[in-house]
Amino acid sequence: KKSRQTVNTDHDAVLLIEANLDDQGGESLGFAMDLLVDAGALDVFFTPIYMKKNRPACKLSVLCAPEERDTFVNLLLRHTATIGVRYQLMRRSIMKRQFKKVETKYGTIRVKIASRNGVVKQTAEYDDCAHAARVHKVSLADVEREVQLQLAKLENQ
Amino acid sequence: KKSRQTVNTDHDAVLLIEANLDDQGGESLGFAMDLLVDAGALDVFFTPIYMKKNRPACKLSVLCAPEERDTFVNLLLRHTATIGVRYQLMRRSIMKRQFKKVETKYGTIRVKIASRNGVVKQTAEYDDCAHAARVHKVSLADVEREVQLQLAKLENQ
Amino acid sequence: KKSRQTVNTDHDAVLLIEANLDDQGGESLGFAMDLLVDAGALDVFFTPIYMKKNRPACKLSVLCAPEERDTFVNLLLRHTATIGVRYQLMRRSIMKRQFKKVETKYGTIRVKIASRNGVVKQTAEYDDCAHAARVHKVSLADVEREVQLQLAKLENQ
Amino acid sequence: KKSRQTVNTDHDAVLLIEANLDDQGGESLGFAMDLLVDAGALDVFFTPIYMKKNRPACKLSVLCAPEERDTFVNLLLRHTATIGVRYQLMRRSIMKRQFKKVETKYGTIRVKIASRNGVVKQTAEYDDCAHAARVHKVSLADVEREVQLQLAKLENQ
Amino acid sequence: KKSRQTVNTDHDAVLLIEANLDDQGGESLGFAMDLLVDAGALDVFFTPIYMKKNRPACKLSVLCAPEERDTFVNLLLRHTATIGVRYQLMRRSIMKRQFKKVETKYGTIRVKIASRNGVVKQTAEYDDCAHAARVHKVSLADVEREVQLQLAKLENQ
Amino acid sequence: KKSRQTVNTDHDAVLLIEANLDDQGGESLGFAMDLLVDAGALDVFFTPIYMKKNRPACKLSVLCAPEERDTFVNLLLRHTATIGVRYQLMRRSIMKRQFKKVETKYGTIRVKIASRNGVVKQTAEYDDCAHAARVHKVSLADVEREVQLQLAKLENQ
Ligand code: NI
Ligand code: NI
Ligand code: NI
Ligand code: NI
Ligand code: NI
Ligand code: NI
Ligand code: NI
Ligand code: NI
Ligand code: NI
Ligand code: NI
Ligand code: NI
Ligand code: NI
Repeated sequence: KKSRQTVNTDHDAVLLIEANLDDQGGESLGFAMDLLVDAGALDVFFTPIYMKKNRPACKLSVLCAPEERDTFVNLLLRHTATIGVRYQLMRRSIMKRQFKKVETKYGTIRVKIASRNGVVKQTAEYDDCAHAARVHKVSLADVEREVQLQLAKLENQ
Repeated sequence: KKSRQTVNTDHDAVLLIEANLDDQGGESLGFAMDLLVDAGALDVFFTPIYMKKNRPACKLSVLCAPEERDTFVNLLLRHTATIGVRYQLMRRSIMKRQFKKVETKYGTIRVKIASRNGVVKQTAEYDDCAHAARVHKVSLADVEREVQLQLAKLENQ
Repeated sequence: KKSRQTVNTDHDAVLLIEANLDDQGGESLGFAMDLLVDAGALDVFFTPIYMKKNRPACKLSVLCAPEERDTFVNLLLRHTATIGVRYQLMRRSIMKRQFKKVETKYGTIRVKIASRNGVVKQTAEYDDCAHAARVHKVSLADVEREVQLQLAKLENQ
Repeated sequence: KKSRQTVNTDHDAVLLIEANLDDQGGESLGFAMDLLVDAGALDVFFTPIYMKKNRPACKLSVLCAPEERDTFVNLLLRHTATIGVRYQLMRRSIMKRQFKKVETKYGTIRVKIASRNGVVKQTAEYDDCAHAARVHKVSLADVEREVQLQLAKLENQ
Repeated sequence: KKSRQTVNTDHDAVLLIEANLDDQGGESLGFAMDLLVDAGALDVFFTPIYMKKNRPACKLSVLCAPEERDTFVNLLLRHTATIGVRYQLMRRSIMKRQFKKVETKYGTIRVKIASRNGVVKQTAEYDDCAHAARVHKVSLADVEREVQLQLAKLENQ
Repeated sequence: KKSRQTVNTDHDAVLLIEANLDDQGGESLGFAMDLLVDAGALDVFFTPIYMKKNRPACKLSVLCAPEERDTFVNLLLRHTATIGVRYQLMRRSIMKRQFKKVETKYGTIRVKIASRNGVVKQTAEYDDCAHAARVHKVSLADVEREVQLQLAKLENQ
């Protein structure tokens, strides 16, 4: 899974593709989001907008690698009601990242360590936390707090 | 038109009818809004919501006189994709209101005078201002400012 | 699954439970939605709101059977950051509904038939359409259109 | 009307002009939208945003032909409260499109046929459907379904 | 400050007052929010809505003690453009709460302890954390994590 | 304060920096907005968005001078949960502006005079109006109306 790979650079570029959708219900928009995520989009999100003729609508935004433009343009045109999509290149400043595993009372949890210019963030992987919370019948916040406690212990050793 | 009638009471009750719509595009939601307004709803509005399965959706809310419940429930069930609507009664505190006409350099504009407990609001009617702005090729703000100036002059006489 | 059961009444009541969440991220809100849906909520939805101190926040709304209030209040208090939830009873006007199966070139699809006061809606079940669209590599709209064509043929027989 | 013209290219460019509006009510924003649409904007839409000092605000976005920048910048500065607008060029991938007329039991309805890379979409024109739905006292969905049935019949001939 | 008082009950009732505002800019809505919070409202929030005539608008919601209805109705009518507000009573399930002080490397931070049916939440007071983060030039997350670590230590003693 | 300086040009460029935040609550987002505004951002705003896995989230947008990119990128990475931000340059068309002081029955109020291509806007400074409204116990609209009346008198002299 892409989102769990080590990243060693601090900048790159992404393509932002957008379409305004005023003739498609939420059911099929949710279906389209699933397909776009499965196809490897870096991010997919909806923004509520308001269009002419009193139409509550939805802007669909996809962030992808610039070289995958055709793939995502085609997916958007096939799975949404729009007949045109617009796009632009954006530059990014990103944190370098690597992963480690932490033992907790809820089992092993992967943690993403992101760093840049002296800022360091350690974030427990959502999928691991969600799994652990379900299995151990606690809240997601309980698991995330436990991970932070174990990370603090490791630092103090 | 109902919204321009004199109102002499300071409280009443309204029915709020709502439906969550995750399977209907903006085009037909705009069409439904027009029908509901034409049918005499006191207010019709959309709220963007987010439902399960990644569905960006829309909550349709209608405020109407309590005795018109059947009319609006039927309109909602006929013109939207929902198979059920929920409703509740709400009490209202309202300002008494009457209307007057004000002469301005952009023509005659109706003004609504609302009052309650020492608070008085004088609001130029939107339809008149919009018409005047279009005819005289000025902005809506220009017309509204002119109306306020004429109202101030009338007060100082 | 509850949403596929025959319904023979045209009105009932639901409980609307709400909480404003300004101290919880989207990840754990999505987790909470999944739990609430799994627990049998009739509907769960988020509304974007804006609170004091420049806080973009989220209103979580749950519709459930009135007799399940304790279950859902407890789930909300356990899995969200709120320390209080508010609720109210709402009455509903609903369409009677039953289900049938329709043969299409994309396989068998269940269709919900909802009716009330002369209004009849036939809606293809989302899960069946989504499955068929994935398997046959077509869009969800292609499947839904095919279902409507088969329904029209059945009517003309 | 521009939106009903044949289009024979599969890419072009548009200008996106935007302004954040925190000092203007919805009434005059709706008025501005009408003027911008009348002036030939390709698209006009509002996005709810939240600004500093607890201000719920509105982002106004206009898509127009790049050579019409001055026209729309001037309209925005005249009819909204902003004192500055920002803009950027975006490239578009669009579907080729042409129009045909379809006879239905609700009268003649124009249909837009959009195509690109093997994807073909046939969409009934909203204005025709809305008019037919009002005249024949049916829902918009009824008219759109009827159009799809007639299109299917034409294909099978 | 009310939000820092001990609470010993697990249910109460609140009044929800609402108004739809389509003729007032964000600046004066932010001003109104400040006044309502200062006047002791339990909660004040904005919801983006879409009204007729293409108007992006704002629903203002106030939660207050039921016996303070007149105070807040009057404030709303004086400081917003609306000429009527609606309201309803809602029941609440709340967690009992008390406060304690925790020593951290960023100074003393108050912590709210909320409990109900076996669920216990310990939340650092925002104002204290924000002050500490500004003074010590760290992020708010840094302060909140430190508080959780100190709370964990206290539990293990 | 930057927003009160005379501006003598009618175009410039700004950098738009954005991040999608699905793992951070509203409390700390409000804290981040305050820091960004204090650091001299030209504008900071939140947009409600919906991300995968049913996550209601928030897009944070910052407009700043292009040469201050590093400052704001660093602030965003330090004070939000994101591990990457994207940015793009946008050109702006702006109105020239200067300031004057107007005497009113609520005290002296600064007024911004913006002009371009024959459009002139005179806007009372929010901070002055808000202060006057609080001191004189009137609504913000009362103060703004009074300022407009005094401006009209000055024009007629
Ligand atoms: Ni385990
Ligand atoms: Ni997380
Ligand atoms: Ni005239
Ligand atoms: Ni008005
Ligand atoms: Ni098959
Ligand atoms: Ni469906
Ligand atoms: Ni006809
Ligand atoms: Ni359509
Ligand atoms: Ni200190
Ligand atoms: Ni907090
Ligand atoms: Ni004074
Ligand atoms: Ni202002």
